[in-house]
Amino acid sequence: MATERLVVVGGDAAGMSAASQARRLKGPDELEIVAFERSGFTSYSACGIPYWIGGAVPERDDLIARTPEQHRARHIGLRMRTEVVELDLAGQRVRSRDLDTGAEEWTGFDKLVLATGARPLRPPLPGIDAPGVHGVQTLADGQELLDTLAGLEAADPAGGRERRAVVVGAGYIGVEMAEALTGRGYEVTVLHRGEQPMATLDPDMGGLVHRAMNAMGIRTVARAEVTRVATGPDGRVRAAVTADGTEYPASVVVLGLGVEPRTELARAAGLPLGDSGGLLTDLSMRVRGHENVWAGGDCVEVLDLVAGRTRHIALGTHANKHGQVIGSGVGGGYATFPGVVGTAVSKVCDLEIARTGLREKDALAVGLRFVSSTIRSTNTAGYYPGAAEMTVKMLAERRTGRLLGVQIVGGAGAAKRVDVAAVALTAGLTVEQVAALDLGYAPPFSPVWDPVLVAARKAVSAVRSAGI
Amino acid sequence: MATERLVVVGGDAAGMSAASQARRLKGPDELEIVAFERSGFTSYSACGIPYWIGGAVPERDDLIARTPEQHRARHIGLRMRTEVVELDLAGQRVRSRDLDTGAEEWTGFDKLVLATGARPLRPPLPGIDAPGVHGVQTLADGQELLDTLAGLEAADPAGGRERRAVVVGAGYIGVEMAEALTGRGYEVTVLHRGEQPMATLDPDMGGLVHRAMNAMGIRTVARAEVTRVATGPDGRVRAAVTADGTEYPASVVVLGLGVEPRTELARAAGLPLGDSGGLLTDLSMRVRGHENVWAGGDCVEVLDLVAGRTRHIALGTHANKHGQVIGSGVGGGYATFPGVVGTAVSKVCDLEIARTGLREKDALAVGLRFVSSTIRSTNTAGYYPGAAEMTVKMLAERRTGRLLGVQIVGGAGAAKRVDVAAVALTAGLTVEQVAALDLGYAPPFSPVWDPVLVAARKAVSAVRSAGI
Repeated sequence: MATERLVVVGGDAAGMSAASQARRLKGPDELEIVAFERSGFTSYSACGIPYWIGGAVPERDDLIARTPEQHRARHIGLRMRTEVVELDLAGQRVRSRDLDTGAEEWTGFDKLVLATGARPLRPPLPGIDAPGVHGVQTLADGQELLDTLAGLEAADPAGGRERRAVVVGAGYIGVEMAEALTGRGYEVTVLHRGEQPMATLDPDMGGLVHRAMNAMGIRTVARAEVTRVATGPDGRVRAAVTADGTEYPASVVVLGLGVEPRTELARAAGLPLGDSGGLLTDLSMRVRGHENVWAGGDCVEVLDLVAGRTRHIALGTHANKHGQVIGSGVGGGYATFPGVVGTAVSKVCDLEIARTGLREKDALAVGLRFVSSTIRSTNTAGYYPGAAEMTVKMLAERRTGRLLGVQIVGGAGAAKRVDVAAVALTAGLTVEQVAALDLGYAPPFSPVWDPVLVAARKAVSAVRSAGI
Repeated sequence: MATERLVVVGGDAAGMSAASQARRLKGPDELEIVAFERSGFTSYSACGIPYWIGGAVPERDDLIARTPEQHRARHIGLRMRTEVVELDLAGQRVRSRDLDTGAEEWTGFDKLVLATGARPLRPPLPGIDAPGVHGVQTLADGQELLDTLAGLEAADPAGGRERRAVVVGAGYIGVEMAEALTGRGYEVTVLHRGEQPMATLDPDMGGLVHRAMNAMGIRTVARAEVTRVATGPDGRVRAAVTADGTEYPASVVVLGLGVEPRTELARAAGLPLGDSGGLLTDLSMRVRGHENVWAGGDCVEVLDLVAGRTRHIALGTHANKHGQVIGSGVGGGYATFPGVVGTAVSKVCDLEIARTGLREKDALAVGLRFVSSTIRSTNTAGYYPGAAEMTVKMLAERRTGRLLGVQIVGGAGAAKRVDVAAVALTAGLTVEQVAALDLGYAPPFSPVWDPVLVAARKAVSAVRSAGI
């Protein structure tokens, strides 16, 4: 039989999207698909874990888009709890290990997809492995954290000393976990290393998040580097301790320190990696220099269309797009992933947070000169009931006026407004062009000048004033 | 003194924005500004009137952005309740009439801005001027309607027969007024001439609005042309009567039949008008062929960038932009209004409605061949609490795949999602480029594939399948 074999390493968003799309294009008689997944789950929404912890999403299984059985029904040969431990590219085979039996075997491939994901940063600090210290990267992590919380809440039904949580890190996961734990009645302290939470924003915009979190009763501590986790006589976590010796009492500690690409296998096989350790691919998501190897999802670097270079962004929406593109290529079709502009949205309770394009320091790092403008407006017409504040910061290139980045913090409707800027960045519009955009207007949805337009008008003036 | 005089005809959004922007650029010693306004109000949000009627906006004055006094404080010579009745372009003067005294006078100008707005369509039907029949174009209209409603509600505190309303027309004003009256406890019937409400959408999408309105308890009657208003013994409205003789009992009738540009003065003065009767301007909003005359707001036609021709769109957000551009030009600066893509958003209770670009019939009318795709998705991740349905229809040009139009109907977040398409239309993106856009993703704000991306992916397939 002339059947080709596709091997997929990693059974989450990128890997299984690739497998599914390849299967759409080629039937089992043309293409055999074998996919290896270390965990017990496939195709789930890691981004949804904070909402499961917080209770908004009731069941773990709500986060699973497709089960192993559903994939198998589509003739995808899934090997669960089986880890690929070596890539032999010259030999066109991978070595895998069954995590339950320890048995190893080699599987040959004609085409290979690497979708090994990312690994949460977990510095080797004293006490970091103590009971009560949790990551929230995987469904198993989430379940363990929920078990810990249930134990604390059972031991202390009235709330109180047992309901003290420390969140380490104030990025997306950190702020979302702060919201989740606050919602469960915990007294939450967020320790973060920067001047302001949400380092993916400029510090002035991060300051708005900081003040809003404090107003919600979430304590934030800046310039706080955790160096140790103190444990009690029972061995459980008792406090997070920072470099200056301050102890932050905690019955539970959640780590949200970011992630790094999981690319040891790729590195050992000599595949090309970028500065942040992610795999480097071409626009069709083929690993550079390797005709039959594709990679996508949280283990690759993506082209930043505004900065003009690759960087590592772990985000489910990119992983799904990568999977589609890879599956098309594997299946004999044609598709590309042109790159990203760095869009990300999040929220802490009612505060929405969004960014796209470059921060000030990103622009400086790639040699761009810019002006920045910040405006305050409202999400709806000012007179409409429930009108909430919105702050928009806009960066534009000096002289050309080209839009470089937008950050938005505010009430309902703030987050997705950043999409307007994402499209404008993709299209290379100037802030003058942005100011003239025909955006939807009606009193329940926007002031007569949408906040993005107001920011653009101010940026136009700033570009003119800055001269060359 | 070498002071120039600017005369502005019309004191609402376009006129007063123009005056304000001109004043920013030139002080009173350089530029005298005289503005004529027929009514007793300046710079108010007509779009907010339905929300005032419905009670969401408590006070009339909430809708007023700037009072005459505030304009006067900025050295703008406002002549309220004074109507301009003739333009003498050769003589560079306008004739005005004081509506209280009837006194007339001529005022000379160096520069002229026409911002005469639009007039609601009010066919000369028997009974249309009966008490209880109301338009909702101006603040005065809104006050009269509120007085009528207060009378009905006082006469019939328990609700019942007196709380029956007929809304004539199912465009933006019609559906917003249906919401407002439903909210006040009226039994509402909407009579409209088309197959479906919201004729600014394709009929298939209008059908979604129709079903949603019915589910909210709002009755809609298609192909219903009102030919007469029946009155009771007291002379007040008793029913709206359609061409087939059906009587729709009503204690109040609201007219939402659209508007036409108010350009009699311009026509009499020989200024150029387009097919829909709106003034024709160049990109700097100068009336074509007239160096010292500008026009903007609801009395002009605007360039539709997708259709490649001018049309009449009465919308406050355009009027404000026109005013800015005109004021810059009058004040010696430089700005242009490049055109529109036809974006409009609205809602009926919880149902959001949005459109941008061309409908099927618009595309056919300008010679474009297209494919169309419709998808259903949700506003948030499907597992997120409160996830609501959203339907997105997308039109793309055959062969090139260029985006031509998007219509969205659905729950929270549906309306402003159309902005993504508005930017893409402005930039001339293809649906393949739209499908690759880096839009904000987090479970509370979007499924991992934003509905707009899902629609674009389907449109990509449709373009490929359609061939040339």
